[in-house]
Amino acid sequence: MQTLTPSLADTLAENLAETLRQRRQQLAERVPFPVMLWSGGDQPRNFPANVYPYRASSHFLYFAGLPLANAAIRLEAGRLTLFMDDATETEALWHGPSQTRQQVAEQIGADAAYPLAAQAAGLQGAAVLWAQMGAFQQMVALLRAQEVDLAQALAGKVADNLALAQAIVQLRMIQDEGAIAQLRQAAKVSIEAHQAGMAVTAQAQTEAQVRAAMEAVITANNMACAYGSIVTVHGEVLHNHHYHNPLQPGDLLLADVGAETETGWAADITRTWPVSGQFSSSQRDLYEIVLAAHDACIDQVKPGVEYRSLHLLACRTIAEGLVDLGILKGQPDSLVEQDAHALFFPHGVGHLLGLDVHDMEDLGDLAGYAAGRERSDRFGLSFLRLDRPLEAGMVVTIEPGFYQVPALLNQPERRRQYEDMVNWERLAQFADVRGIRIEDDVRVTAAGAEVLTAALPTAATAIEAQVHR
Amino acid sequence: MQTLTPSLADTLAENLAETLRQRRQQLAERVPFPVMLWSGGDQPRNFPANVYPYRASSHFLYFAGLPLANAAIRLEAGRLTLFMDDATETEALWHGPSQTRQQVAEQIGADAAYPLAAQAAGLQGAAVLWAQMGAFQQMVALLRAQEVDLAQALAGKVADNLALAQAIVQLRMIQDEGAIAQLRQAAKVSIEAHQAGMAVTAQAQTEAQVRAAMEAVITANNMACAYGSIVTVHGEVLHNHHYHNPLQPGDLLLADVGAETETGWAADITRTWPVSGQFSSSQRDLYEIVLAAHDACIDQVKPGVEYRSLHLLACRTIAEGLVDLGILKGQPDSLVEQDAHALFFPHGVGHLLGLDVHDMEDLGDLAGYAAGRERSDRFGLSFLRLDRPLEAGMVVTIEPGFYQVPALLNQPERRRQYEDMVNWERLAQFADVRGIRIEDDVRVTAAGAEVLTAALPTAATAIEAQVHR
Repeated sequence: MQTLTPSLADTLAENLAETLRQRRQQLAERVPFPVMLWSGGDQPRNFPANVYPYRASSHFLYFAGLPLANAAIRLEAGRLTLFMDDATETEALWHGPSQTRQQVAEQIGADAAYPLAAQAAGLQGAAVLWAQMGAFQQMVALLRAQEVDLAQALAGKVADNLALAQAIVQLRMIQDEGAIAQLRQAAKVSIEAHQAGMAVTAQAQTEAQVRAAMEAVITANNMACAYGSIVTVHGEVLHNHHYHNPLQPGDLLLADVGAETETGWAADITRTWPVSGQFSSSQRDLYEIVLAAHDACIDQVKPGVEYRSLHLLACRTIAEGLVDLGILKGQPDSLVEQDAHALFFPHGVGHLLGLDVHDMEDLGDLAGYAAGRERSDRFGLSFLRLDRPLEAGMVVTIEPGFYQVPALLNQPERRRQYEDMVNWERLAQFADVRGIRIEDDVRVTAAGAEVLTAALPTAATAIEAQVHR
Repeated sequence: MQTLTPSLADTLAENLAETLRQRRQQLAERVPFPVMLWSGGDQPRNFPANVYPYRASSHFLYFAGLPLANAAIRLEAGRLTLFMDDATETEALWHGPSQTRQQVAEQIGADAAYPLAAQAAGLQGAAVLWAQMGAFQQMVALLRAQEVDLAQALAGKVADNLALAQAIVQLRMIQDEGAIAQLRQAAKVSIEAHQAGMAVTAQAQTEAQVRAAMEAVITANNMACAYGSIVTVHGEVLHNHHYHNPLQPGDLLLADVGAETETGWAADITRTWPVSGQFSSSQRDLYEIVLAAHDACIDQVKPGVEYRSLHLLACRTIAEGLVDLGILKGQPDSLVEQDAHALFFPHGVGHLLGLDVHDMEDLGDLAGYAAGRERSDRFGLSFLRLDRPLEAGMVVTIEPGFYQVPALLNQPERRRQYEDMVNWERLAQFADVRGIRIEDDVRVTAAGAEVLTAALPTAATAIEAQVHR
């Protein structure tokens, strides 16, 4: 069982029960059946007693609000039933005092609360999410160890439930006030982490040292990293989780680092800055193109706009910029139609953000793609994680980039395909740019975009000033 | 697939293949059958694409040397066969260039190397470890996704194999030169982390800020935390993984933090220091007792000595000290026989250390307890993790402590049981000590103890000096 920072618990207590009540009321309006959700429990790292930092299931967190472990909730017609055990004496010895089931029930506004073993009864007739079966099986194993037989309750009752998944997607996609308050906290600390990273770069010798300074801010604020940090002079490796490279004065450093609050809400920020504190002219030229794409997308954010059109806007802005620089040859629209931009911008312009950094990606593309849509297999679209019209209350990332990925640019077939669209000699003059990405977290409002991460500047001169501090 | 820091890879290359050859030769002398070991793969945090920092299986790391993911090895009569796939183009795009199967095979001295799908053949007649079944099933799932059918190869072939587990315990328990070199690196960085924690305490407001400074050292050295850090003014919570408390001038801060090298070898260090930089007289009195127990155990370390006798020596030293202070009443030996020490020192004096921070605890007590021995259910012995005669080459922790755990001291039955052995009024004068632990990593040599973590002082005055820096 987890306990929260007392000050956070106090803050939460004022609004948590009411926020949760509204969420399950909205769920009840969408599904006529009872629902069981499990928190999950510790995951072993190399042996059972040495576990990864615990992370409760996001679906559970959305409706239970607190990062409980080894717990389940049943939601039915707006009623909340909590299943969890009070700590044993041994648990108290090793893990300290923790809230009792009754205290948790009061904090989250549960209508009833029972020991975990009673989940067998709670499961009767309830719908569950396939993505939560791992958590469920873990709870069952826990109970089997206590000699509780769940077999009867399970028979035929546990099945995937698309209607439930769709209802939860509808709810979690539109971030309520409780969610936004948490997302703002995550953004605030993540901004401080990036500022610390920029400030330490002048003294740092390696990527690892910059990462350490950034994550130290997150740790010092008693938050976790929402995802594996990317802090690298090889930004062209899109999910680079190595930190061993030395920093050279001519390098760009790409940092994609975000914090997660204690109740699980994420931020996701990328900045790219020059190790020397000054962009070279080639770096500045490409940085300005990525920034233009970033700004153009954010300018267009409002309810009703297709996220896919933002992606294509980013593609076209980048293609235009590369034509202007003489790297691409041809008409921007035609280049985008032929996916030539994807040689340099091979990923999507962003994704949903919430309790998960790619929100609800545990459900595959159910959240990311509107009903009836599915992923394209086009080179320039296959990595697009979100294809829906924007709605007020959604939070999305906007994160265009420019990369020179050897595996893409040197692939013979692709090289032939784009032979005439790329001025390879001109491109060679930009060899000091391996990867640039600029990523902010954006709330969709009726008035347009509210950039939750706006306090961290994006302009090249502002970035240089931060590195020079 | 993982790649290593290039400088580390260079260092390893000189000795790695030979170290691994010796290890599997020694295994071949102990088991007459072929063996399959799996690395495991990424574990999802909240959805499949957001994973915990990868940690390969320790058994795999011992014989394969490198933190490969989605790989298997077959060991037979000293021969090493590697099963892994080369990175696909998409993997190269997202994760960057990685070593090919052939390059890895050369680095670790494999006699043959095949794609992962060939593990079905490699599994023929091979023994496996039950503790690795999770990793195995993950590999199978990976292959099923590639439409490789392993059913035939599996039928009746995969079973727990006690002989294999025992052989591996015999090998891994005696740390070879390759292991010791890694353990020294982990110790060095962990010592720096503790020094940073002490140095930052004067400016820090919360536990979280001290933790951040300590883990930043580990991160900056491109290592991971070997286990969930404990950094707390509530040291009486034995596995406290919360960091929200403010630091008060009268508090003791207990920090149990250790680094793990890139190839998985752990350090495990605890120090306890006064937030103010100066122990109070009550804190100093109890600190000196714990330190006396720590030193007495280390003085006795040599081959042939029973680890359990070290535990009992720590218990008796603590009991003596508490009698001298007037907290316990009676004869120390008699108090220990009645487990009165365990009111204040309720855990074991330490454990094996190696690739796992509790080495090989994934095999239950097979490594910790000599054949024919099992855990006592005595209050003062049930948490003892190691009960074997020491052998040259073992690395163990020595970590006595003193705690005032409310859940223990206020438990009515226990309170009655020890009513006459404790001077509760005298104890109340030590209320500013909630938890003290002093933990070092000790290599057993023919000449006695070699303390791998000796560069970090334990004396109260030396600790005060570090906090005051």
